[in-house]
Amino acid sequence: MPKLRQNMITGDWVVIAPERAKRPEDFVEAKRQPKTQAKDGCPFCPPKGEAYLSKIEGTETTNVYAIPNKFPAFVTEDEIIEEGGDFYNSYKSLGNHEVLSLKDHDAEIPYLKPDVLYDLFDLYRKRITINNKNPIIEYSLVIHNFGAEAGASIDHPHSQLFCSSVIPSYISKEIEGSKKYYKENQECIYCRLIKEEKKGEVRIISENSDFIAFTFFAARFPFEIWILPKNHSSRFESIKSSQIKNLVEIFLDIQIRLKNLLNEPAYNYFIHTAPADPSHTSIYYHWHLEIAPRVSKIGAYELGSGIYIDVVSPESAASFLREEKRG
Amino acid sequence: MPKLRQNMITGDWVVIAPERAKRPEDFVEAKRQPKTQAKDGCPFCPPKGEAYLSKIEGTETTNVYAIPNKFPAFVTEDEIIEEGGDFYNSYKSLGNHEVLSLKDHDAEIPYLKPDVLYDLFDLYRKRITINNKNPIIEYSLVIHNFGAEAGASIDHPHSQLFCSSVIPSYISKEIEGSKKYYKENQECIYCRLIKEEKKGEVRIISENSDFIAFTFFAARFPFEIWILPKNHSSRFESIKSSQIKNLVEIFLDIQIRLKNLLNEPAYNYFIHTAPADPSHTSIYYHWHLEIAPRVSKIGAYELGSGIYIDVVSPESAASFLREEKRG
Repeated sequence: MPKLRQNMITGDWVVIAPERAKRPEDFVEAKRQPKTQAKDGCPFCPPKGEAYLSKIEGTETTNVYAIPNKFPAFVTEDEIIEEGGDFYNSYKSLGNHEVLSLKDHDAEIPYLKPDVLYDLFDLYRKRITINNKNPIIEYSLVIHNFGAEAGASIDHPHSQLFCSSVIPSYISKEIEGSKKYYKENQECIYCRLIKEEKKGEVRIISENSDFIAFTFFAARFPFEIWILPKNHSSRFESIKSSQIKNLVEIFLDIQIRLKNLLNEPAYNYFIHTAPADPSHTSIYYHWHLEIAPRVSKIGAYELGSGIYIDVVSPESAASFLREEKRG
Repeated sequence: MPKLRQNMITGDWVVIAPERAKRPEDFVEAKRQPKTQAKDGCPFCPPKGEAYLSKIEGTETTNVYAIPNKFPAFVTEDEIIEEGGDFYNSYKSLGNHEVLSLKDHDAEIPYLKPDVLYDLFDLYRKRITINNKNPIIEYSLVIHNFGAEAGASIDHPHSQLFCSSVIPSYISKEIEGSKKYYKENQECIYCRLIKEEKKGEVRIISENSDFIAFTFFAARFPFEIWILPKNHSSRFESIKSSQIKNLVEIFLDIQIRLKNLLNEPAYNYFIHTAPADPSHTSIYYHWHLEIAPRVSKIGAYELGSGIYIDVVSPESAASFLREEKRG
């Protein structure tokens, strides 16, 4: 029986329709497309790759570095160009766009060593902090596309930081929803969600002293997983070293489960943190990392309605991913 | 230079970042995956296919028929099951879900004869009208996925009708936006859009006495095309026979351009019409059909922000598609 579920934060509806697929195991054939771009001549590879050579000062460690995106979606120049008159709203897309790259061409997120992933997460923290100081930047969003099916067009492993002069609509909805919930309940809705998940236990996959990972009740995607800090915090970028270590630990635990149980699917992940302005540090917004495996296609219904149909129930996805980490 | 553009109806932002790709021609290699499912034994094929045999009475013509979806996202039973207590909202996903099928397994939308497409559009009209009479149905959305990349899992050519007990968020936003615009300007925002497009002429691809087709100013997807009736109408399902003929004409004109100039890309299309309740027939909402070619991937930025990055400017997409229909 399909279920209509509501995202308690944004109010968005999803349909959980597991009958449309059979079992979680049916997605095991979903292995992402293999890499095709050679290390030899890769612009992102040290010591001589063209992209690597444009690295931003002070960002390089043994394992990672940051560069400006060569084809930015958001640009830093401050001259605003409007076009289109009184009916069409168009502006120069102000902000910044960086590539946060691993050094090792052959490294892959699911197989990373903890210290390498630590450096990558720490680079996220540093670059968000620095970009948020730029007054034209309203929001900094870290994302990662893994596999061509998930939008990765460059094989060299890298994340991206999109810094925009507008707060993205998805974030605005989360902030409005969590603010409203706080007003009515004097509690952060994400802290409540964690409490409820711990009570029910049916969607939890993994947990350590700082973090909890579970499949989301109103997931848009099969096997969609959220990782949240257990203690309230609205900003990812205020994370401490010891917490990064625990984030690395739980993130790799999830990666190994996806790799072993779902045969390395393509996926996206992104970090939702508070907007740049310090006034957004709050008792109601709670940062989180969302992982969206791309084992089913986004079709016309999703694009035309805004309602996602998820063909694996979050409960059976969690039960499947809780299995002993094989391999 | 990337541009930040706003959908004047919904308020949503998109980034038009053509530098990320090179030219419209770069997408010509985008041909969709070939069909793999044989006609022999296909459940949707007359005269003996299992799905075909479950056809809904009175829906069959020489070219098309409708059936209940075997794996529905929305169901017709009226017993509501809630789950999850006071924090989680979950209901039985009430409504209806139909498959609107062509009879000919080998038929493909871009190659359809006008009379076959006429029957399909007329079936859309009839099934929306009938389903909208069901009081649990708030919204009927017709969609079509063409090619596996666009979410088509069954090769036999078919559209789907999703009838939900909620008005999808995308539609609500369009209605709110167009209502607000009407209040402030005493004009339908879509009628104004048509007027502005005709003035500017840079995004128009095709036109006949009843319809106009153009690339959308704040497109989410490369080569995204909107088809609108030139005379105000809030309901697709109130279309007249002579208008269906002209819709078929302009739709096939667009199909031939996509096929010949972009080498048959996978795409989605959907029809946005007014919600079921007759009170939604209005002077401010204007039905339209949107075609979204799937020549680029939806990545983590889109999923995590709600902001789509379109790598082909709507103006150069229109200029490219206006080229003489070759072949």
